[in-house]
Amino acid sequence: MVQNSRPLAWGGFIILRTPNYLIQCVVNTADSGISLNNIPIESTVDIEGKVVSAKIKDESILPRDFEIQIDKITLISSPAVESLPIDTSKKELSVHLDTKLDLRPLSLRHVRERAIFRIAAAINNGFSECLTDLGFTRINSPKIVYSGAEGGANIFKLDYFGRDAYLAQSPQFYKQMMVGVFGRVFETAPVFRAEKHNTSRHVNEYTSLDLEMQLNESFHEIIQVEAKVLNHIFKKIESECAYEVSVLGLKIPHIDRILILEFEEAHELVYKNFNIDHRSENDLAPEEEELICQYAEKEYGSEFVFVIHYPTSKRPFYAMSDPADPSKTLSFDLLFRGVEITTGGQRLHAYDDYLKKMKEWGMNPELFSSYLQAFKFGMPPHGGLGLGLERLTAKLCNLKNIKEATLFPRDIDRLEP
Amino acid sequence: MVQNSRPLAWGGFIILRTPNYLIQCVVNTADSGISLNNIPIESTVDIEGKVVSAKIKDESILPRDFEIQIDKITLISSPAVESLPIDTSKKELSVHLDTKLDLRPLSLRHVRERAIFRIAAAINNGFSECLTDLGFTRINSPKIVYSGAEGGANIFKLDYFGRDAYLAQSPQFYKQMMVGVFGRVFETAPVFRAEKHNTSRHVNEYTSLDLEMQLNESFHEIIQVEAKVLNHIFKKIESECAYEVSVLGLKIPHIDRILILEFEEAHELVYKNFNIDHRSENDLAPEEEELICQYAEKEYGSEFVFVIHYPTSKRPFYAMSDPADPSKTLSFDLLFRGVEITTGGQRLHAYDDYLKKMKEWGMNPELFSSYLQAFKFGMPPHGGLGLGLERLTAKLCNLKNIKEATLFPRDIDRLEP
Repeated sequence: MVQNSRPLAWGGFIILRTPNYLIQCVVNTADSGISLNNIPIESTVDIEGKVVSAKIKDESILPRDFEIQIDKITLISSPAVESLPIDTSKKELSVHLDTKLDLRPLSLRHVRERAIFRIAAAINNGFSECLTDLGFTRINSPKIVYSGAEGGANIFKLDYFGRDAYLAQSPQFYKQMMVGVFGRVFETAPVFRAEKHNTSRHVNEYTSLDLEMQLNESFHEIIQVEAKVLNHIFKKIESECAYEVSVLGLKIPHIDRILILEFEEAHELVYKNFNIDHRSENDLAPEEEELICQYAEKEYGSEFVFVIHYPTSKRPFYAMSDPADPSKTLSFDLLFRGVEITTGGQRLHAYDDYLKKMKEWGMNPELFSSYLQAFKFGMPPHGGLGLGLERLTAKLCNLKNIKEATLFPRDIDRLEP
Repeated sequence: MVQNSRPLAWGGFIILRTPNYLIQCVVNTADSGISLNNIPIESTVDIEGKVVSAKIKDESILPRDFEIQIDKITLISSPAVESLPIDTSKKELSVHLDTKLDLRPLSLRHVRERAIFRIAAAINNGFSECLTDLGFTRINSPKIVYSGAEGGANIFKLDYFGRDAYLAQSPQFYKQMMVGVFGRVFETAPVFRAEKHNTSRHVNEYTSLDLEMQLNESFHEIIQVEAKVLNHIFKKIESECAYEVSVLGLKIPHIDRILILEFEEAHELVYKNFNIDHRSENDLAPEEEELICQYAEKEYGSEFVFVIHYPTSKRPFYAMSDPADPSKTLSFDLLFRGVEITTGGQRLHAYDDYLKKMKEWGMNPELFSSYLQAFKFGMPPHGGLGLGLERLTAKLCNLKNIKEATLFPRDIDRLEP
């Protein structure tokens, strides 16, 4: 397709958009008799010509050492409108986020937008590749479920042949059940959260990269696997998305050492260094996550901080408490560039522990009987994590809003396109 | 985990279930002092021992030339019940389908069930790998949508913050929009069909392997890509799932030549050879699909039949009609072992053609305006296909019911586990 068409007195230029790159093509009207006046932007053309070496001016956008001298051009299809509502041929797509999202089928054709979603694809593929190599089996769990995994009000309800059903907030129950089958499993699939607030960190449907694994010693094995997976993804982006990294001007990080902070240490660090006191709270505040990341990068040269041992009161019922201190869980969050990109941890695996915890939390085990089966019939110690694809993509590409890393975002006000 | 535990007078055997294989372990009580009486089936154990070469009796289940002589065994966790409701250690899991599905967290631990879903994972991974190599970009499109792609009554409705929304029946609209962006895209994600009939060929939620691509000449390019992808998947299964193929006793097919029948030829073939007349119908009847496959295997040695040029009246509004005969579409179904596993074809790409077709079909284009944007702003000729993961898995594994190839199936009566 034609990304840009610039008719000039002597002929002109066309920038072709191919699945991977933009390619510059040159028309010399004196030689070919071709005029570009009838070749609009966003038309599809068939061209014949010669590939010649060339010095390209803007190497970040056109990273080729060749161009095509066009001998013949045939118009295959063209837009149905005289002029397009936004100019995707410009180096910067300077339009309001809502305009960009309203016009998604067009705005995504901009070179930077394409680069973002090529990187998202590499993350998704890299996650699967690395885990497959580590002996994990891919699973596909149902998204229409009979009860919510995480509980709470933020769950979408639907009519399932006259019964109430829900959209899965996470594959939590299913990936746990599947640890009993395969030992190590992963899933990359949509999850649904009916959160009513419209923020730069949330969308109502996103792609969750999930893994769950049998544990031999401790939940630190999950952290080790995550570091391996992320490093694999980063290497893959550097090798396969060099063009996109250059278009977006990105710095791709690496996890050279695993930096771990105790939850209480994290609170203390913020208090001591920034004089902001959230120490009485059972979660990290968004501003704390930002400050911890700033501090870790400056002091330890790490863009990744694993915070461990979150309070039991803040984690879901299936989280395993620390035997040494039941007020804490054997869990972690991974912070990257100011936000949490992963929540993970060890889960309960003994049936009796589930019954006990559910009783304590005022939950009715009978409502969860088909899930609790897995534990009744025997389960190994296990744990896992969920990684939000869009959030990681946004952070990696330095985007301010997660919606910029979502092809067709859903929020409380947006259901189209 | 312990797949089987057989205490004997002199010691006994344990069959260990690891992420990939079963491994036989031997206990000699006289040497080790260990009794297996306290090691139940489906417990998790930590073992120490020596790996020794061994002749294994049932090589289809235990394909190893070694076993482990246990020196020490520690029980890590065990089932909360005295006896399990089904015996997953038996060679055949001879229970009713409903029992198998009700007890999914346990029944999936059977060696044959595991093999089925390892093959499903290989299909899913192979689809992505091959398409990525062919220059396709992975996309993630929303599953909560404002209107259905396929239309009709079989769509699930949900309450989206007080508005009506629907669950995507296919990623059709979105993958088309994304052809304008990347030229070639694919998606592997759940789709939702509110079909009220409970058959051996349908589930209400399944994994759709979708691709959509720019076309240079004709829709036969899609068929070529599908043949390549399927052959890649089959080779992958042979090389990476040799154990599972052996456990299930499968014959993995190949597409050596692409066998194509015209839709009308297919009807005629059934009429001439089997004296069954569906020639006046605008679709192939299930019995015809079976007979065509039988015939093609016998006469042409091919398990795959591409049937092309389905009637326009039977295909969705976005299907492109054959310019030479507008009563037919530039479309195909792929039949394999008696059922359709793929529907594909070329789509309309000109905005005006959409407006015209929608008018003819009594549809309101305004309801589709955010989708039609893509065509208004210019789109290349394109087409694609959808391949049902569970249906292909079922056929490949010779399963009678698609639910046996679905981890946690959803049908009109089943929402759990």
